[in-house]
Amino acid sequence: MPEFRQDPITTRWVIIASERGRRPSDFETPPPKADNAFCPFCPGNEHTTPHEVYAVRPAGGGWDLRVIPNKFPVLQVEGDLDRAGDGLYDKMNGLGAHEVIIEGPEHKIPLAHRSVERINQVVRAYHERYVDLKRDFRFRYVLIFKNQGEAAGASLEHPHSQLIALPVVPKRVQEELAGARRHFEYKERCIFCDILRQEMREGSRVVLENEEFVVISPYAARFPFETWILPKHHESSFETLSANQSLALARILKNLLLRLDRVLNDPPFNYMLHTSPLQEGPSSYYHWHIEVIPKLTKTAGFEWGAGIYINPTPPEEATRFLREARVDREF
Amino acid sequence: MPEFRQDPITTRWVIIASERGRRPSDFETPPPKADNAFCPFCPGNEHTTPHEVYAVRPAGGGWDLRVIPNKFPVLQVEGDLDRAGDGLYDKMNGLGAHEVIIEGPEHKIPLAHRSVERINQVVRAYHERYVDLKRDFRFRYVLIFKNQGEAAGASLEHPHSQLIALPVVPKRVQEELAGARRHFEYKERCIFCDILRQEMREGSRVVLENEEFVVISPYAARFPFETWILPKHHESSFETLSANQSLALARILKNLLLRLDRVLNDPPFNYMLHTSPLQEGPSSYYHWHIEVIPKLTKTAGFEWGAGIYINPTPPEEATRFLREARVDREF
Repeated sequence: MPEFRQDPITTRWVIIASERGRRPSDFETPPPKADNAFCPFCPGNEHTTPHEVYAVRPAGGGWDLRVIPNKFPVLQVEGDLDRAGDGLYDKMNGLGAHEVIIEGPEHKIPLAHRSVERINQVVRAYHERYVDLKRDFRFRYVLIFKNQGEAAGASLEHPHSQLIALPVVPKRVQEELAGARRHFEYKERCIFCDILRQEMREGSRVVLENEEFVVISPYAARFPFETWILPKHHESSFETLSANQSLALARILKNLLLRLDRVLNDPPFNYMLHTSPLQEGPSSYYHWHIEVIPKLTKTAGFEWGAGIYINPTPPEEATRFLREARVDREF
Repeated sequence: MPEFRQDPITTRWVIIASERGRRPSDFETPPPKADNAFCPFCPGNEHTTPHEVYAVRPAGGGWDLRVIPNKFPVLQVEGDLDRAGDGLYDKMNGLGAHEVIIEGPEHKIPLAHRSVERINQVVRAYHERYVDLKRDFRFRYVLIFKNQGEAAGASLEHPHSQLIALPVVPKRVQEELAGARRHFEYKERCIFCDILRQEMREGSRVVLENEEFVVISPYAARFPFETWILPKHHESSFETLSANQSLALARILKNLLLRLDRVLNDPPFNYMLHTSPLQEGPSSYYHWHIEVIPKLTKTAGFEWGAGIYINPTPPEEATRFLREARVDREF
């Protein structure tokens, strides 16, 4: 049974996922998979995955998208949250949900190269699962994320995203919430809206925009070519995403990912969706967004020890490269 | 000129190291270096490095250890700190010192395989440089760290450590200081001393100890086989390290690194020394230590998005493997 444990100094939670059973020899690099290796996410192998919780099925049969519980979940969905002390320490049972969004039946078509309509199905699936998991009062946060490429932590090649529902609000989100609240107390304005206003006026870090979303490379980008996708108008939670916004998000996401592909030659990357905690109402101070981080540099002793990131590419330069990248058309 | 920029939401500083000039094509993986490639840290090539700031020279000539300014520093040592606003944002010029500790003349002998006496020279060098840089009142923190192995971020194979002196107290250290202060306000005890007491009594996470130091695998370890080296008796700063303690640290560090080598087959790793900020006197609440993290897993979207780490190896199991590892003798 996985377990949450809290570091008593920093209050950072970790998940001790012991049933994943990693002994020392398990950390050796496995040989690369053969091109014809078995893929549990490909059509025909549906019986090897847990039973799907959501799917998009076109009229002609088959499926366009499936959402399934992760076969090797880091958290377990059964039972209630049980907090306990252990001397000085605090722990909880590893309660949570861990799902995989299989973005399409085609093993070889990465998200950026699917049609806008198909990417919109993925965004809709994120939203459907988010809204559904919100009904479970044991959960306080749903983190939606994607790892593409082995260096970015993807263990299967078939294009997929993941979500993990958590009984706690994660530390990184708490930090953003605290900073946004501090700004709101001082200014009575949303700090993300303030950032967007300054960026739209200044222009040098605006990568893309459409009627609903803006992509910026943030002023204090941690990583080369880091970008954030933000709703243009104030919106604290992903929950309220409209059909229009969903389509606009699919379009800007495709445009951005194609540009990253073009400029960085198909880089490994992660993206993570940050939104208000589940059991909070709409707020004036927080603003949901997606952070996209290509995996181009290594996190080393200085970054781990300091929490300060060294970024060799100024966001203004990254913006220029991404803006100038040739894509067939805007989406 | 490098620049510090602060994320206005999380107050996280980043270093935009633009003179490192990374264009998109610079991120492609370079071919592995030939075995006979030029090494600036090897004897005979001293003229290719900046002028050394510290060295250990045995009576017979040559050198055992050199400390040099990094030829490609992420921060620049000249001038004064200049803080400025940029609309909503805050920045500072990239003031700091960035030095390299070349741990020995031998290109092929990693730290763990040097003699205790030679490892003690490395610890003494850390201490000498720490004390010297403390005299520079522009600096508020000196972070000493080591990256070993390419996956852990080492760009040169020749065994070396690094230090970066900073005009700010880094975020990760601030988090530890805040947590330690919170505990002290509540209990009037050092939280690290409390942890050590519980661990010594309980035993299942104590990897090693000698008269001055204890190695534990922390209760909420972020990474498989993560360990911390802590002074047994309360000590807030690395500054007060005695000759005895230095030798004891060299011994336990060798013992630990040899065991990691044995159990994990020469893993890439980082270690980072956390100590009280430079311009603070001794404190009752903070306790310096070294965090050692083998690089065995990939940090992916969930970790970046949540700040929650998934550790597949319980620290109790890591402890058991490390304790049972066969090393020739205790040091």
